[in-house]
Amino acid sequence: MINTLYLPELREMLAENNEAELREFCSALHPARTAEFMEGLSADEIWRVLQYAQPEVREEIFGFFPSEKQVEILETQDRQEVAELVAEMSPDDRVDLLQDADEAVVREIMPLLPADDRRDILRLQAYPESTAGAVMTTDFAKLGENLTVREALSELSRQAEELETLYYLYVVDDANHLRGVVSARQLVSSMTRPETRLSELMESDVTAVHVLDDQEEVAAKVARYDFLAIPVVDDEHQMLGIVTHDDVIDVMREEAVEDAQRIAGVAPLEESYLRTSVFTLSWKRGLWLTILFAAALTTAFALERYLKAIEEFSWLVLFIPLVISAGGNSGNQSATLVITGLATGDVKLRDWYRVVRRELVMGLLLGGFLSLIGLVAASLLAGDFLSGAVVACTLLLVVLCGTLSGSVLPLFFKRIGLDPALMSNPFVAGIVDILGIVIYMNVALLMLSFTKHPPPSAAAWLPSLPMFLVR
Amino acid sequence: MINTLYLPELREMLAENNEAELREFCSALHPARTAEFMEGLSADEIWRVLQYAQPEVREEIFGFFPSEKQVEILETQDRQEVAELVAEMSPDDRVDLLQDADEAVVREIMPLLPADDRRDILRLQAYPESTAGAVMTTDFAKLGENLTVREALSELSRQAEELETLYYLYVVDDANHLRGVVSARQLVSSMTRPETRLSELMESDVTAVHVLDDQEEVAAKVARYDFLAIPVVDDEHQMLGIVTHDDVIDVMREEAVEDAQRIAGVAPLEESYLRTSVFTLSWKRGLWLTILFAAALTTAFALERYLKAIEEFSWLVLFIPLVISAGGNSGNQSATLVITGLATGDVKLRDWYRVVRRELVMGLLLGGFLSLIGLVAASLLAGDFLSGAVVACTLLLVVLCGTLSGSVLPLFFKRIGLDPALMSNPFVAGIVDILGIVIYMNVALLMLSFTKHPPPSAAAWLPSLPMFLVR
Repeated sequence: MINTLYLPELREMLAENNEAELREFCSALHPARTAEFMEGLSADEIWRVLQYAQPEVREEIFGFFPSEKQVEILETQDRQEVAELVAEMSPDDRVDLLQDADEAVVREIMPLLPADDRRDILRLQAYPESTAGAVMTTDFAKLGENLTVREALSELSRQAEELETLYYLYVVDDANHLRGVVSARQLVSSMTRPETRLSELMESDVTAVHVLDDQEEVAAKVARYDFLAIPVVDDEHQMLGIVTHDDVIDVMREEAVEDAQRIAGVAPLEESYLRTSVFTLSWKRGLWLTILFAAALTTAFALERYLKAIEEFSWLVLFIPLVISAGGNSGNQSATLVITGLATGDVKLRDWYRVVRRELVMGLLLGGFLSLIGLVAASLLAGDFLSGAVVACTLLLVVLCGTLSGSVLPLFFKRIGLDPALMSNPFVAGIVDILGIVIYMNVALLMLSFTKHPPPSAAAWLPSLPMFLVR
Repeated sequence: MINTLYLPELREMLAENNEAELREFCSALHPARTAEFMEGLSADEIWRVLQYAQPEVREEIFGFFPSEKQVEILETQDRQEVAELVAEMSPDDRVDLLQDADEAVVREIMPLLPADDRRDILRLQAYPESTAGAVMTTDFAKLGENLTVREALSELSRQAEELETLYYLYVVDDANHLRGVVSARQLVSSMTRPETRLSELMESDVTAVHVLDDQEEVAAKVARYDFLAIPVVDDEHQMLGIVTHDDVIDVMREEAVEDAQRIAGVAPLEESYLRTSVFTLSWKRGLWLTILFAAALTTAFALERYLKAIEEFSWLVLFIPLVISAGGNSGNQSATLVITGLATGDVKLRDWYRVVRRELVMGLLLGGFLSLIGLVAASLLAGDFLSGAVVACTLLLVVLCGTLSGSVLPLFFKRIGLDPALMSNPFVAGIVDILGIVIYMNVALLMLSFTKHPPPSAAAWLPSLPMFLVR
């Protein structure tokens, strides 16, 4: 929600050019709160208020606006002033901002930036999306391995104002190769031995990531080791940048959303839902919807084989949706449990036997329970106990099929190196739909034929999945 | 995967009691890597190796084992030695460990702990699950407001070894009220003015959370402000602890998994999939499965009203699963997009009109495309163009229903204060199933009656949803 509490006061201060109060507003609160209070203002008004903030604070407040607002300000305000702000921004954030902004505007702003910053931006922009290089920042504390604790501290107090993070100090040799890491805490607690060299103090077994590593791997590593930041190196182990904890949180959130979208059969969006165009969205949904539709079409072919039986026992129709949805829902549950288990590492491939055994038991329990309800409901609705028994047997088998395919398929996709979240839910749905129909019809024909009628010809009730697939 | 690379060497070192090499193994690598290499050993072997590590390192390595392994070690090894390890652990981690371990063992270990630690554990255990109090740690740097920079630094170098984090230094008054915060970076960069008082340096607008706040809110706040840690206070604003960035990452991961489970209709699990008993799991799944089953049962009642028509036009049966799954899949996509959008804050309640308009357009596009495929497939399968037209019209309407209910229901649940992830997907599935049947049958009766046959009696094809609900 936009906070409108301060808007009238802010507009009044602007109207009066009340310098003292505007300066106070920009400096009194945490920059994130200041940004929140301003969100309801127009881009012009925000820019006017920001002129009363110290340059570093201005950049910090700006960084807490939603990215659409940032782009709007960048595109509408004075180029020279905007360029000064961009120069102050942290290297990774400004690359994101420039990527979202209008190209023509970016072409005007770039020449106004200091040469160093310009080069840094071009370098960072060159890394492919979703790699360590694309999320890293180039602002980090770097110290020579021959410095003493005393020298390091004084060097740091010089660098500290400019740096985004100061929790790890990376120790490099003359050729910028990463040699080790010293935490700020180690440095402070070594103040009593000021002549110690960093090379003695540093941890030389440094966990780093390669600049082209996938961001998901980077996030998993940081989470696994409880790091605040992880160094990014190239093939020669030269230090290029760091990925910090706040970027890791963003990456994890992004990946969780992508997984949820994949599970629902939507190809992951690159931008937020509201910023993605309707046509892009239709394409990303339509692709999977069509595949799922094709799978569902095969149920029509399957059903056609049983049309004669259905015409004879028309009450069978009533429970088609019920049977299909019971199988689909239980399969969906199993698939999601296994997919999230695999994603968090709680379930490993080598646990496949335990998983399948559990799902077998669960399928019997859940299927058994639903069959009981189905038995009563179908007996009442169709008017005889035999119909109830047909529906009950079918439900037990279909739920069992659902839990088994829902658990086995994600494991299988993982095994052959595909993303389980991408492939299994749509597959599970499609497979369980067809199996559901085939099971239902065969159970019905079998049970009905052995009781009320002479057995029909074998071809009509033999498991007919392979047969209709070759038609 | 368990890393088995070092296991033979480790076992050999243990057999030889090779002290030098075991000490080297425990200290050379990052504790997380050391733990990884040992994961394949038995609890006894691990404990023997750990005896060669420094107490602080021992505790760190131990903290990187999976929780099952930690519990196993705790329960099987010498109580006195284990108690020493527990005393070294960080306050939040040891509470988690003791909560997972066998109660009888915990009762034996508790009296062996120093009184301070014991009291701390009991206090932390008292906070309800999923609150700030339950995830916070009580190890944090606390300084009096009257200290100077010089005094603060020397105080810190004394505290540094014991503390988990040293990024923010919390400034309190004599009665332990939180007054402000100074970052380690500010302190280091103020070393040139060693007589400055902390009260002048500190940021007094501190964002804190209440000890009973939900962990999800805490995580959202930390992510929003890019904090490394957030202070936890009680009603009187007394400082109780901090929640650190690594705990926030764990909370976010946990919440993402819970959301995915809710979307699939599984009540969130408290433990990992494999550690949850089959009966608990059956209960958590069975509850929703039964609700969904009840919804699906109403489709049987709906279909019964149309049984006469179906007997006359038996080809209608073929496309029942197709129609239902097209509606369900498109509804599932919309619901997931809106739910994840709401969870990340990309979609706000006030955007409801934009969301609904987009889903309307998307329903027309996606539904239109699927109708075309349906038209061709159904014409071929049923043998005439009219059947194809019936299926095509139905698909367009059903997909539209799916996208609209999939988007509106999560927004509606959010509006009335319910968790959109908990309620909407099952609801969407149930509603779209019934609507799908009703739409299909009415479209069919309408189109077929106006072409081939005289119109049937009005009661048979009037929208009959309200009618079958009151039977």
